[in-house]
Amino acid sequence: MAMKVIPDIIVSRLPIYLRALRHMQEQGQQTTNSQELGEQVGISAAQIRKDLSQFGEFGKQGTGYRIAFLIDKLREILHVRNVWDVAIVGAGDMGHALARYQGFINRGFHVTMVFDNDPAKIGQVIGSLTVLDANKMVETIREAGIQIAMLTVPAAAAQGVADKLVEAGVKAILNYAPISLNVPEGVRLQYLDPSIGLQRMTYYLE
Amino acid sequence: MAMKVIPDIIVSRLPIYLRALRHMQEQGQQTTNSQELGEQVGISAAQIRKDLSQFGEFGKQGTGYRIAFLIDKLREILHVRNVWDVAIVGAGDMGHALARYQGFINRGFHVTMVFDNDPAKIGQVIGSLTVLDANKMVETIREAGIQIAMLTVPAAAAQGVADKLVEAGVKAILNYAPISLNVPEGVRLQYLDPSIGLQRMTYYLE
Repeated sequence: MAMKVIPDIIVSRLPIYLRALRHMQEQGQQTTNSQELGEQVGISAAQIRKDLSQFGEFGKQGTGYRIAFLIDKLREILHVRNVWDVAIVGAGDMGHALARYQGFINRGFHVTMVFDNDPAKIGQVIGSLTVLDANKMVETIREAGIQIAMLTVPAAAAQGVADKLVEAGVKAILNYAPISLNVPEGVRLQYLDPSIGLQRMTYYLE
Repeated sequence: MAMKVIPDIIVSRLPIYLRALRHMQEQGQQTTNSQELGEQVGISAAQIRKDLSQFGEFGKQGTGYRIAFLIDKLREILHVRNVWDVAIVGAGDMGHALARYQGFINRGFHVTMVFDNDPAKIGQVIGSLTVLDANKMVETIREAGIQIAMLTVPAAAAQGVADKLVEAGVKAILNYAPISLNVPEGVRLQYLDPSIGLQRMTYYLE
């Protein structure tokens, strides 16, 4: 049987459901339904049911979803049951902030390397990490088998670094540099772009 | 005539179209079509046509979209033709990074204030800004009429600060703290959450 291709727009909503479900769980809640989840995340109940039905039957008509079960299923679908090692490139303010970020815990990620090409930054200690020389990035990432990187270098350097990450075997890049990047087919790229988050809200402002 | 309510999921895609169109424009391109735009942003051409048709007729069958015109229309729809003043609360690594971020230029935002409650940080200079005392935040933001804030304080402090921002008249909060916040109706809240961006990619990784 051919594997069903799920549209990326559906995939993109699953982490948002997962975060909301975890929040409910932290509040001590055990069950929910598509109506309540929809109100939390601003997506219609029908859309949520349709999205989840792509992956199986996770709830029952009338009784809704068991939160722990649905969390576990979403973690399985999103491949975050285990922890991925992540490299940061760029030990500026943003790189420091990400290296110390508390929001990766229990969500599938662990920053294990930080690189920079500035001699003043190489050797700096950030928490339990030491900033490594970007000149050794390709072999270091390749040897460690790291597939995920966060890019926090200046815009002008970003494409060059992205090319090296691809060379090193990285398959997923989260880009903080305010510039569009080109990566080959088979490499995923996401932008973490505050302007996008802000513009999504200004629509509603006068 | 009652104003048509556009689903937030559609609104959320417009900034992504806008960024891609700007990128095309920077490359010297003058026209595009829903097919090409769709490939750039990973959304189907049919969805893009459907999304844009909510707001009017922006392209022509066969000839596609004039990029400059569509950019202007999207900026109008998203209310980013003018520049919004933005306050940052939390002058840690992330606050510094955002205060210096180059990706707000020409996208409708200008950081005009940074607050912190740490006496060691108050008075610090970040570019052209001086870190202000968070104890004076409510009146300072209210007097300036600032409606947008970015929240970069530790998780434990985030809800308290969010409450104060609402009190100060802020209508849109971009939250970087790794915690879910509650805000009253009429206040928009977005999360800039790297784990969400990463989980969206791990789906595709083995």
